[in-house]
Amino acid sequence: MSSEYTFLSQCFDDLLPFPRSITGSGIEASIHYLQQFMPLSIEKVPSGSQVFDWTVPPEWHLKRATLTGPAGELICDTNINNLHVVNYSIPVKGIFELSELQEHLHSLPNLPKAIPYVTSYYNPVWGFCISDETRQKLKPGAYIVNIDTEFKTDGGVPFAHCVLAGESNKEILLSSYLCHPSMANNELSGPLVLLLLYKRLEMWPKRRFSYRFLLNPETIGSLCFLSRYDQHLKQNLAAGLILTCVGGNNNTLRYKSSRGNNSIFDELISNLSQTDTDWIHQEFTPLSGSDERQYCSPGFNLPMGQIARTVYGQYSGYHNSLDDKESMDINQLIKSVDQIESMLKIAEVCGKPVNQSPFGEPQLGKRGLYPTMNKPGNWQLSNDNTIDNRKFLNIILTTLSMADGQHSSIDIAKKCHCSIHELADVIMILEEKGLIKFNQEPLI
Amino acid sequence: MSSEYTFLSQCFDDLLPFPRSITGSGIEASIHYLQQFMPLSIEKVPSGSQVFDWTVPPEWHLKRATLTGPAGELICDTNINNLHVVNYSIPVKGIFELSELQEHLHSLPNLPKAIPYVTSYYNPVWGFCISDETRQKLKPGAYIVNIDTEFKTDGGVPFAHCVLAGESNKEILLSSYLCHPSMANNELSGPLVLLLLYKRLEMWPKRRFSYRFLLNPETIGSLCFLSRYDQHLKQNLAAGLILTCVGGNNNTLRYKSSRGNNSIFDELISNLSQTDTDWIHQEFTPLSGSDERQYCSPGFNLPMGQIARTVYGQYSGYHNSLDDKESMDINQLIKSVDQIESMLKIAEVCGKPVNQSPFGEPQLGKRGLYPTMNKPGNWQLSNDNTIDNRKFLNIILTTLSMADGQHSSIDIAKKCHCSIHELADVIMILEEKGLIKFNQEPLI
Amino acid sequence: MSSEYTFLSQCFDDLLPFPRSITGSGIEASIHYLQQFMPLSIEKVPSGSQVFDWTVPPEWHLKRATLTGPAGELICDTNINNLHVVNYSIPVKGIFELSELQEHLHSLPNLPKAIPYVTSYYNPVWGFCISDETRQKLKPGAYIVNIDTEFKTDGGVPFAHCVLAGESNKEILLSSYLCHPSMANNELSGPLVLLLLYKRLEMWPKRRFSYRFLLNPETIGSLCFLSRYDQHLKQNLAAGLILTCVGGNNNTLRYKSSRGNNSIFDELISNLSQTDTDWIHQEFTPLSGSDERQYCSPGFNLPMGQIARTVYGQYSGYHNSLDDKESMDINQLIKSVDQIESMLKIAEVCGKPVNQSPFGEPQLGKRGLYPTMNKPGNWQLSNDNTIDNRKFLNIILTTLSMADGQHSSIDIAKKCHCSIHELADVIMILEEKGLIKFNQEPLI
Repeated sequence: MSSEYTFLSQCFDDLLPFPRSITGSGIEASIHYLQQFMPLSIEKVPSGSQVFDWTVPPEWHLKRATLTGPAGELICDTNINNLHVVNYSIPVKGIFELSELQEHLHSLPNLPKAIPYVTSYYNPVWGFCISDETRQKLKPGAYIVNIDTEFKTDGGVPFAHCVLAGESNKEILLSSYLCHPSMANNELSGPLVLLLLYKRLEMWPKRRFSYRFLLNPETIGSLCFLSRYDQHLKQNLAAGLILTCVGGNNNTLRYKSSRGNNSIFDELISNLSQTDTDWIHQEFTPLSGSDERQYCSPGFNLPMGQIARTVYGQYSGYHNSLDDKESMDINQLIKSVDQIESMLKIAEVCGKPVNQSPFGEPQLGKRGLYPTMNKPGNWQLSNDNTIDNRKFLNIILTTLSMADGQHSSIDIAKKCHCSIHELADVIMILEEKGLIKFNQEPLI
Repeated sequence: MSSEYTFLSQCFDDLLPFPRSITGSGIEASIHYLQQFMPLSIEKVPSGSQVFDWTVPPEWHLKRATLTGPAGELICDTNINNLHVVNYSIPVKGIFELSELQEHLHSLPNLPKAIPYVTSYYNPVWGFCISDETRQKLKPGAYIVNIDTEFKTDGGVPFAHCVLAGESNKEILLSSYLCHPSMANNELSGPLVLLLLYKRLEMWPKRRFSYRFLLNPETIGSLCFLSRYDQHLKQNLAAGLILTCVGGNNNTLRYKSSRGNNSIFDELISNLSQTDTDWIHQEFTPLSGSDERQYCSPGFNLPMGQIARTVYGQYSGYHNSLDDKESMDINQLIKSVDQIESMLKIAEVCGKPVNQSPFGEPQLGKRGLYPTMNKPGNWQLSNDNTIDNRKFLNIILTTLSMADGQHSSIDIAKKCHCSIHELADVIMILEEKGLIKFNQEPLI
Repeated sequence: MSSEYTFLSQCFDDLLPFPRSITGSGIEASIHYLQQFMPLSIEKVPSGSQVFDWTVPPEWHLKRATLTGPAGELICDTNINNLHVVNYSIPVKGIFELSELQEHLHSLPNLPKAIPYVTSYYNPVWGFCISDETRQKLKPGAYIVNIDTEFKTDGGVPFAHCVLAGESNKEILLSSYLCHPSMANNELSGPLVLLLLYKRLEMWPKRRFSYRFLLNPETIGSLCFLSRYDQHLKQNLAAGLILTCVGGNNNTLRYKSSRGNNSIFDELISNLSQTDTDWIHQEFTPLSGSDERQYCSPGFNLPMGQIARTVYGQYSGYHNSLDDKESMDINQLIKSVDQIESMLKIAEVCGKPVNQSPFGEPQLGKRGLYPTMNKPGNWQLSNDNTIDNRKFLNIILTTLSMADGQHSSIDIAKKCHCSIHELADVIMILEEKGLIKFNQEPLI
C-alpha cells in the first residue's frame, strides 16, 4: 500500500458519513475536513439570492429521519444510511397506513438490495428510500414517520476554493462537486482526486499556469461560483476540468470537450486519444454530464471540459447504495491522478510559443545550437556535439519557424512528426536561450 | 376542381391575349388586371434613363402586324397570335418579293408547327415569326408587309409590387417577370404562382418576415427596380426567390442557390433536397436563368435564389407557341405553390435563435419543462407529463446550448438529429416561454 | 547553338575563376562583371553592423593559399582552384608535420577525386581541401603552409539589384546568391538564369508588375538586404522567387511554396504541377533550402517561394569540385528560363480582377460581346460572329460574376473549367473594354 493509497482511504472513510446535500451541515463539514490538507476558503451565497435564472434555496438541515413499522421495527434510519430520506424532504411527524405511505416510498425493483438516491430540491415533498427487498416485505398497518428536518432561510449555498500560484495569472480550474450523501464513485471520487492532485502539483518545481481547486454543490453551486467569478474567469481562465465519477472499473478516462472547442485540453486529448489507449475523447454535449453544462452555457462559453472514468450506464451503483468504496476502488483514483497530472504537465507547454528573434533565422551557431563549420562530415550533426541525423536541429528550426503566436505546441509537434514530450525538451532549451516565449495573453 | 384551380384557370385565360413586351400597353394591362387581386403599386422608370450599365429603351406599342400573301391570304396577324411579330419590330409598310422577305422570317425547322418567339430590343430590325410548315408553302410573289408599331420616348419601363407586412422589417422578396407574350410556362406560370402565394400568405395568422411581391419585365425591369430599391434591399432583404417556368410536367422543383450562398433558402433547400424528392438543389451559375443574374451580380450580391420546375431543354415549347396552357398545367402551378408555401413556413423559424437566459442552464423545472423530482423512475421523462425517453427535453437542451446567434435552426436540427418540423415545435414553445428570441438584425 | 547559349557559356567561363566568398573581392568582381548586362546598383552593409540577430563579419580577402609538400611539390594552390582553402581561413605561415596537418585537411573518402567545399565564417580556423586520392598519398614530413588572407573590418557585405519597372509598383522579386567559389550548379546557375530572365523580360511589350533582380551572398546577404528593404517589401512585394541549383540533369523544376502560402505562385504552381510534368510542387519547410528561409521567417513571412532543378541528394557534385559546367549544362539553364518566363507571364493575369460594372450584368450587346437578336438560332453563339456553343460567352459571364476582388484568376479558370491560358485571352478583352481591372493593392 502506498502512502497515497492509505491517505485517500482514510479520507474516504472519514468523509462518507457526513449527511451531504446542496446546502447545510453535511457539505460544510466535508469542506472543513478537507481544509486540513488544502487551504480552501469558503464563500456562501445567501438563500433567496437571484443567481442568473435561479433562486438560491434555503439551507436544508437533517437531524434524523426514521420510519418505524407496525411492529415497532426500524425500517429506515438516516443514522444508518443518509440515503434513506429523500434529500430536501420537508419535516413530517405522523402515523400513516401502508397504503398512504406507498407514494412516499422509493425503491428499485431491478436492484432489490439497493437503496436509491432521490432528491427534490425545488418542489416540497417528503419520502423514504428503501431497498425493494425490504419494501416487498412491508405489511399493512400503522407506520410512524419522523422526518426531523429544518429549512433555514438565513443560510446559503457554500463553495470552497484555493489557488496554487504559477508564473502566469492565467488559471487552470480543477473542480468537483460535494453534495451527494454516502456514495463513492458519484461523490467522493472527485474531491479525493482533486485533493491528491493538489498535493502533487504543490510539489512541482515550477508552474507556468496558476491552478485553482474548487469544490461546490453541483449545478446551483457552480452557478453561485460563476455569479461571483465570471469576470475573473473570462479574463484569466486558460482551461478547466470538471471531475466526476473518476473511480470505478473502467480502464479509460473519458474527456469531454468544451462547447466552444476553446480549451487547450480539447485538441490535446483529442490527439492523445488516437494513440494513448488510456484516454477516450468525446465531443461536447449539453444533454448529460456535470457542471461543465453551466460553464459552457452560451453566455459563458468557457473553456471547460469534463473528465470521468466510470459513468451512468457503466455501473449498477449509479445513484444508489451499491456505489461503495470497493466498486469505486482507491487504486483507480490514483490512476486517475496519474493520468491527469501527466496531462497537466504537457499542458504547461501547450500554449502558442512566440519566436523572440523572428526576423530571419537566429544565429544558432553562437548559441551552440548549430555546427560551427559547414563541411560534408557535419551534415548529420545537430550541433558540434550531437550526432543524430539533425533530428534535434530540425525540431528547433521547425519550432522557430512556426512560433508566431498562431500555432500551438501541438501543431508544432505534428509538423515535426515528434511526440509532444520530445518537443517539450526542445521548448525548454529555446526558452532558456531566450529564443521563444509563451504569450501571457490568450493562451488558448 | 378546387376553387384555386378555377381561379387560376380564369386568370390565365384573361391574361393570355395581352400583347406583352418589356414596355407598353400589354405589360401594363397585365398589371392592371392583377391589381384586382393584390394591391400592386406601379412605378415607371422613364425611357432614356441610365440604369447602371443600361439605357432604358423607348416604349414599344404594337397596334397590329400583318403579312399578306400574293393571293391576298393572311399569313401572319398579331390579332390571332402575338408571337407572329418580332418583339420590338420597327414599323414597316411595303411590298416585298419572297426572296427579300426571307431574311425577315423566323421559323423552327425542327418543330414545323411551332411559331418561335423572337426579340430584338436594342437593335432596330423587323420580322415575322411563322411555323415552318407555313413557310415551306410560301410561293414566290409580292407580299404585303404592314407592321404598325410605334416607339414612345416619353414612356418607360414599368414594375409593380406590394408588401404583406410581418413582425420584422426584414423582407422576403418573391419576384417574377411579365414581359413574354402569349406563352404559358415561360410567362404566366410565374405571375400566377406569385398571385396564389399572395392569397395564401395573406391568410397566415402570423408572419415573422415581411413579404414583398414583385412583377417586372425580365432583366431591364429588375435593373429598374434595383436602381430604386437597392439600398432598401441591402438593409432589409433576408432572402428572395425568382420564380420562372414553375409549371410543366417535371415532378421536382429546382432551387438554384444565391451567388454568395447568403440566403437562408440555400442551406435549407440544399438539406431538404437530400431527403425530399420534390426538391432538387443546384449551385449558382451566372450562365443562364432569370433575374437572379441581376440581383446576384457582384455589386449587389443579394441573397436571391431562383425556383423553376420545367426549364429550357426539358420541354419542346421553350420560347415558341407550343408553350400553352395544357403543357403548363394549372395543377402543376398549385403544386408549386404548395411546395413553396411549405418552405416559407420553415423559413419563418430558420433564423439564428438567441438564448435569453444564456448564463448557465435556465431552471426548466419552474417552467414545467423538467421533471420536478430526480429519481430513477424519472430518467426517461422530458418533464412530469412527457414519457418520451427525453427526446423533447434533449431538443430543448440542445437548442438552448446552441442558441448563441451563431447557429441557424438548420444547424440545430442537424445536431438534434431531428427534422426541422420537430424542431419548429420546440422553438415555438421556447419562444412562448421567453427563453429564445430571433435576432431581428442579420437574419442570414 | 543559340545566341543565348553562347552568351551564357561565355559568362560562365568568365565568372568561374573569381575567388568568391560572402564578402571581398571575388563577389564584388562578379557583380561588376554582371553590371555589363544589367544595371545593378551595389550596396554594402558595414562589417560590425548588427543585422537582426547577426553581426556583419569583416571582409575576407584571399591573396593566395598554398600547401607545399616535403619534397617541394605544390599540393594545394588557390590559383589553380579556389576550393583548396577553407573559406574564411585565418592567415597562417609555418611548417607542420603531416600529423599536425591532418586536422586541417578536408577530403571526401567516398568521392576520392573531389575537392570538398568547406567554410567557417564565424569561427576562426584554417585548413585545406584536397581530393582524398591526393591525401592518401601524402608522406610523413615537413609541410609548408602559406595562407595569405586578410580580414578588413572597414569592409562589408555587398548586395546588388535593379528593377524593370511595370504598370504597378507591386514587385516580383527574383533573387539568387553569389558567394560560392568555382562551382556551377550550386553557384553560377542561379545568377545566369537571373541574367537571362532580365534580358527576356526587358523585351516584354508590357509588364503589369515591376520586377526586381537581386544578387547577394546567401543568408547574411539576404539579411542585409532585408535590413534595408523590409518595409519596402512589406508594402510592395507581390511575390518572389529564390533561384538555387537551377541547372543539372533533373527534368523538372521544383517549386517550394512560401511559409504563409501567401504568394500567387503557391497556388498557381501547385495547380500547374497536377497536369504539367515539368513542374513539381513542394510545401514550405524551414529545414533546408536557401534564402527563402530568411524571407519566410515568422517576423517577415513574405510571399517568397524557391525554385530549384537539381538539388542536394540528386547529384554527386553537391558542395565539391565535381559541380562543373558539364554536369550543370547550359541548356538546362535555358530550359529553366523558358519555364520561369512562361510562369511569370501567367502570373501577370493571376491577380484578383474587379468588375468595373458590377451592378447587374453589363450590357454586353452594345460592346459586341452578345448576340443582338434573341432567337433560337442564336442560342449557340457567343456573339454575332462567334459560333462556339457559347464557350467564350460563358467564360465572360463567369469572369464578370466572380470578379469581386475576392477571387483570383486561378479560381475563375477552375470555375470555367478552362485553362488559365484560355482565361487570359478573355481577361485581355475585358480589360480592353474597361469591364475589369486588377486591384493595384494587395495583389495576393
